[in-house]
Amino acid sequence: MEKRPIGIFDSGVGGLTVFKEIRKNFPYEDIIYFGDTARVPYGPKSKSTIIRYSLQNARFLMQQNAKIIIIACNTASSAAVKYLKRNLKIPVMGVIKPGAEFATRETKNKKIGIIGTEGTIKSQAYPKAIKEIDNTVQVFSKPCPLFVPIVEEGWEEHYVTKLIIKEYLSELKNIQPDTLILGCTHYPILKKQIQTFMGNKTKIIDSAVAIAEKLKHIIPDPVKSGKGKDKFFVSDNEDKFKQIAERIIEKKIKNLKTVKLGEVWYI
Amino acid sequence: MEKRPIGIFDSGVGGLTVFKEIRKNFPYEDIIYFGDTARVPYGPKSKSTIIRYSLQNARFLMQQNAKIIIIACNTASSAAVKYLKRNLKIPVMGVIKPGAEFATRETKNKKIGIIGTEGTIKSQAYPKAIKEIDNTVQVFSKPCPLFVPIVEEGWEEHYVTKLIIKEYLSELKNIQPDTLILGCTHYPILKKQIQTFMGNKTKIIDSAVAIAEKLKHIIPDPVKSGKGKDKFFVSDNEDKFKQIAERIIEKKIKNLKTVKLGEVWYI
Repeated sequence: MEKRPIGIFDSGVGGLTVFKEIRKNFPYEDIIYFGDTARVPYGPKSKSTIIRYSLQNARFLMQQNAKIIIIACNTASSAAVKYLKRNLKIPVMGVIKPGAEFATRETKNKKIGIIGTEGTIKSQAYPKAIKEIDNTVQVFSKPCPLFVPIVEEGWEEHYVTKLIIKEYLSELKNIQPDTLILGCTHYPILKKQIQTFMGNKTKIIDSAVAIAEKLKHIIPDPVKSGKGKDKFFVSDNEDKFKQIAERIIEKKIKNLKTVKLGEVWYI
Repeated sequence: MEKRPIGIFDSGVGGLTVFKEIRKNFPYEDIIYFGDTARVPYGPKSKSTIIRYSLQNARFLMQQNAKIIIIACNTASSAAVKYLKRNLKIPVMGVIKPGAEFATRETKNKKIGIIGTEGTIKSQAYPKAIKEIDNTVQVFSKPCPLFVPIVEEGWEEHYVTKLIIKEYLSELKNIQPDTLILGCTHYPILKKQIQTFMGNKTKIIDSAVAIAEKLKHIIPDPVKSGKGKDKFFVSDNEDKFKQIAERIIEKKIKNLKTVKLGEVWYI
């Protein structure tokens, strides 16, 4: 039987935290990653635009023969996962539900915090997913729009980042959730700093880990041997992608190509 | 004769600092503003992508009968102004040249600083434009990628912003340029804070002011009476645009519509 890859897309580099976890857990599978770097970020965009872009991205991965689509972007997951599930003929997984399930299993004091982009927080996707599992859980959300540009700037270790974390998370810290979902695939890069600020009593949930766990149960036609290959596609700016991407996945990126999606010249 | 509007485009809200200056200086003219909010920001995108988007934006303004195109975005000006000038049948003005001319007239110690997005700084558009006017001037550039998200977050007055300004501009301050070009249309919103940090010996050049000055000499078919009308178009997220835009232009936005540019469904 032909070996078909796992397809992952994100608005840019953030989803590579998901790629990295999946690669670690599925060493035999081929993986195709698409980063929509021409149209990044999705965070501030409207729902209808995000659905349109997500569909274009998924169709591209299907043309590459993907056997499953992983939406490695919280904004796109919250806006588009239902639409894609309904309209595509292969399985689709978002990051929201696995993260919500993981957090709901972990919490003891029934207080869960969520941080993410404006789009993800506004969509209320996490609170809805959590309440469906356990409606006695209290959910506290906070958008942190500067975290993505800080990561892209490479300022993880910068003292200003500590201050911005303090600014965004102080209120949440006072509420003392025992579980905090990193509701944006860029945020695991700030995990250490966020953990330090929140303290040891708060467990940080990385949705990349949650999705890789869940994928074990639902992956179609699992591959049992050999060596999985990686292919990367972006819609713009290969050099910049490569530079940040190699920092995130901690290895060299080969097999990187640029494709233009869903565009025509406007005449 | 039919009254034709001045057409202005930017990647988002930043160009409204240019709109505001032009509105102030040309009270009788109609103005059409297009903010490409679906594809904002242009800063990290590649030159070819920015040219493609700029052409789509300009064509849209021409369909609205614009008599001149103002590229109110430094990134798009540096990447696309030449291409648009060559390929469009109406006059095109970018922000780079007016800003460079203004700064070169003002400097006494022949040291000019430039701050902007990564794209603008990497393009070397300002140094080239300045050297063409006076090649004895020394130019010092610094990309400040976090300034745009800070403005969009509304953090002008936030103490963290002071620290970020210090981080980005300390080296430049030590060089003591007597003139500093705000090479991004978002930056005038931080003008007061940047001026405070740089001190009174440095004159801050706002390219919005420079472009409005220059436009007086080249505007086609100037209108001499009546009341100019404003129309605004965005490619996404009217609500968010409206909210930031009204803060920038300090009046209510009416006449705001969404248009989709240069896209087809990818099937």
